Amino acid sequence: MKKEVLTTIKHCLKAQQFDLATLYRICELTDKVKEIGATKEGLNWMATLLNDKRALLFFTQPSTRTFLSFKNACDILGIKSTEIRDIATSSFAKDETLIDSAKTFAQYVDLIIMRLHPAHESLIEEAPKKLNDRIRIINAGSGSDQHPTQALLDFYTIYKYGFAGKNIGFVGDLQRGRTVRSLALLLTKLDNLKLYFIAPPAYQIKDDILKQLTVSYELVYDFDQIIPELNVVYMTRLQKEYGGNDVPYNQIDYSIHEGNLNKFKKDAIIMHPLPRGSEIAPSVDDDCRAKYWEQVHNGLWVRVALIALMYGMDYDIIAKSSERMVKTLGTIN
Amino acid sequence: MKKEVLTTIKHCLKAQQFDLATLYRICELTDKVKEIGATKEGLNWMATLLNDKRALLFFTQPSTRTFLSFKNACDILGIKSTEIRDIATSSFAKDETLIDSAKTFAQYVDLIIMRLHPAHESLIEEAPKKLNDRIRIINAGSGSDQHPTQALLDFYTIYKYGFAGKNIGFVGDLQRGRTVRSLALLLTKLDNLKLYFIAPPAYQIKDDILKQLTVSYELVYDFDQIIPELNVVYMTRLQKEYGGNDVPYNQIDYSIHEGNLNKFKKDAIIMHPLPRGSEIAPSVDDDCRAKYWEQVHNGLWVRVALIALMYGMDYDIIAKSSERMVKTLGTIN
Amino acid sequence: MKKEVLTTIKHCLKAQQFDLATLYRICELTDKVKEIGATKEGLNWMATLLNDKRALLFFTQPSTRTFLSFKNACDILGIKSTEIRDIATSSFAKDETLIDSAKTFAQYVDLIIMRLHPAHESLIEEAPKKLNDRIRIINAGSGSDQHPTQALLDFYTIYKYGFAGKNIGFVGDLQRGRTVRSLALLLTKLDNLKLYFIAPPAYQIKDDILKQLTVSYELVYDFDQIIPELNVVYMTRLQKEYGGNDVPYNQIDYSIHEGNLNKFKKDAIIMHPLPRGSEIAPSVDDDCRAKYWEQVHNGLWVRVALIALMYGMDYDIIAKSSERMVKTLGTIN
Repeated sequence: MKKEVLTTIKHCLKAQQFDLATLYRICELTDKVKEIGATKEGLNWMATLLNDKRALLFFTQPSTRTFLSFKNACDILGIKSTEIRDIATSSFAKDETLIDSAKTFAQYVDLIIMRLHPAHESLIEEAPKKLNDRIRIINAGSGSDQHPTQALLDFYTIYKYGFAGKNIGFVGDLQRGRTVRSLALLLTKLDNLKLYFIAPPAYQIKDDILKQLTVSYELVYDFDQIIPELNVVYMTRLQKEYGGNDVPYNQIDYSIHEGNLNKFKKDAIIMHPLPRGSEIAPSVDDDCRAKYWEQVHNGLWVRVALIALMYGMDYDIIAKSSERMVKTLGTIN
Repeated sequence: MKKEVLTTIKHCLKAQQFDLATLYRICELTDKVKEIGATKEGLNWMATLLNDKRALLFFTQPSTRTFLSFKNACDILGIKSTEIRDIATSSFAKDETLIDSAKTFAQYVDLIIMRLHPAHESLIEEAPKKLNDRIRIINAGSGSDQHPTQALLDFYTIYKYGFAGKNIGFVGDLQRGRTVRSLALLLTKLDNLKLYFIAPPAYQIKDDILKQLTVSYELVYDFDQIIPELNVVYMTRLQKEYGGNDVPYNQIDYSIHEGNLNKFKKDAIIMHPLPRGSEIAPSVDDDCRAKYWEQVHNGLWVRVALIALMYGMDYDIIAKSSERMVKTLGTIN
Repeated sequence: MKKEVLTTIKHCLKAQQFDLATLYRICELTDKVKEIGATKEGLNWMATLLNDKRALLFFTQPSTRTFLSFKNACDILGIKSTEIRDIATSSFAKDETLIDSAKTFAQYVDLIIMRLHPAHESLIEEAPKKLNDRIRIINAGSGSDQHPTQALLDFYTIYKYGFAGKNIGFVGDLQRGRTVRSLALLLTKLDNLKLYFIAPPAYQIKDDILKQLTVSYELVYDFDQIIPELNVVYMTRLQKEYGGNDVPYNQIDYSIHEGNLNKFKKDAIIMHPLPRGSEIAPSVDDDCRAKYWEQVHNGLWVRVALIALMYGMDYDIIAKSSERMVKTLGTIN
């Protein structure tokens, strides 16, 4: 049970904090926890890993998907969790400053998983400095900019199908929407791939991201024309909730449906951070290239892997996986 | 630990799905889990049965009673559960279609326990077809029609006092109110009993149910006169929340109170799905014939039994119960 | 595993119910559970103590701090808990009487932890009489008068620094605010200490409390002047939410800040039930005399100790602590 922690992640605050070695470590661990989690014995074992930890899911901005995946990831690891959800509209925050609230939470739990309304966004910077040293923090989406665990699950999903030589297209409202922004910053750590940002000018990705890219990329207007080139198609919906430009994409179609599905490569993968609007027709779900539900599923296990890694459980998990493999081989011989 | 699953219940969707053998199996199992759950050792054992499962309590219509019983049933079986409550009035459903939400949930959990607002009622039909095959669904009350686990707990409560030769009276607002409708459809699977539907014409049970009854039944107007005949008295309250007829029962009294309690059989049982209005006076609670709190308690254990049966744990439970009985006998001799 | 229960606490309803021996027992147990909870092995052991129990956190008045501490205390002891939060503004209570709701809860759980809105305050008296005998009740704050577990954590915090010969000052809005009222009634069980109630006349503590005090006390107007005398300074904020007198303290300063911090004794302790307003400047947090975050932390472990004691687990905890001490000594020799 000796542990050498090669990679130390104290907090998970932003996508850019992960170097490529850590990203691959998370992908490797995700594979392992999925595999271990496929049996009752494996799940029971995982539930002992962090059963001495207590977490708070502090969600000042509602989010069903991220909430559910973190809550279940905690359950899988044996972490006892408590929830404060949707306080933006509640009486909570008005009683005290946000940092006083966070200092209070830190007296009860070990890990605070924060989803922050734009009005509370600054807490993600402030908390790691002002809370006591024992506390770990995970950013479960803050303001309009960061959603690092979404980027990790997107990264992992592409990783499963291979990065090398791939053309990765982002489609839709690329200006707003933190998922594309965060993912692009992870992908630029790789080489031998090309990014296509496919959107009308008013929705095109902003320069602040483009300036940070070291991989090759192209800005594309016409979705239909580029479809046959793409190995990965990352669809997004209009981010109406953050205001700003509301002009619909009225001149060109940025959606996938029965009419253009046949133009995609046979082994392309179609992704979407969900919830979807009209940009992917429900009938596409039955196509084997549709990977957005798998992506949701990956979101659960990537978060299990991330939290396990943060607490230095990666070696235990890899050892457990090897032990199981040895047993299986023993059975075969 | 070899298991022969005689009765397979993949989902629990409607009261009518249960044949008589399954109903009795659930009653038998309920007896066993209650008995095992009476000791700490037994509760600890039950908490290992399904501790590899994760459930979502998806309640788009508020319900404290049903929510609490399912949540605690999951806890008893070791199932890790997460809640989404009362989304009818929240921002949730507007982001995506209900089936997309359900497909998302299906990526995180094994079991979805759904309580559906009438506006979402169709999901109970759609989900079993569209979700992946691994997912189990329980209907915890959908729209104005179905509430199968309430029917099961009502069935079990009568079972405890015996069905044979009984006169079972339903009293009050029988037109609306899914509990009477669901329970009547279960009781018609038995014979040697008689149902009395006791209500003013405007609240009398509808033909769609009567047409399905194969047991003998009678429609009764005057509650007072029929009281001495009844072995089981199932009281209900005015279902104001579903709209429709709001004329109070102003000509005749359909309630139980100190003034008529002496007219009931000495061994009659008084039931109510709760919450109650004025149809049972609080002073009746102290009478030994009042069984509605016991009925609530049964609701917890029937749900434990149902979920255990759905996952094929019935043989384990029966074996455990026998083993305990052998031990107890050993101690006596 | 034989247990002699010297102190029996069936319910925790009001601060005054605890005699001095019980208060010290709770303090002793709090020390032990903190110590045992410092290791994973210890936490795992504690999580087996009451893992056959189910609790309901029934909060009809919102309270993040008390809620979080009770929820985490349940988790630490292995108690499975379910929550009903903030029903004052929900549709819940209107369906049935509060006592019917409580009777329902009593069918599902063993322990009901109640935080009651003033409108529901009577339930804390009614429930112990009307619920079945198996049910335990804890008052987590009821109406404007009682908050016994806050009083216990305050008591424990002072205990850690010693009671003997201390001058304890309560500062601010002493008229309303149940924490000062409850704590004063505990402290009067001690002797060899003196209480100072420091407030403008309109906010001074009421006679109903003063009449019950058997320790010496003094009413003080000028905070600044008394500061150097105080060993314990218990700050409070204006209790605006209960209405009544809203005149600000405009003539005199009842707050702690960099300007008067140097006037306090070197070993004074500064307490606050939180949330704070402007009565303690954030910069005071860095002073070693600021103990209000420690006080929050104590709130978690005092509640663990209280619940353990209610269920007669005190001897197990003390035995476990001794066993650990023996092991540690063995290692040293």
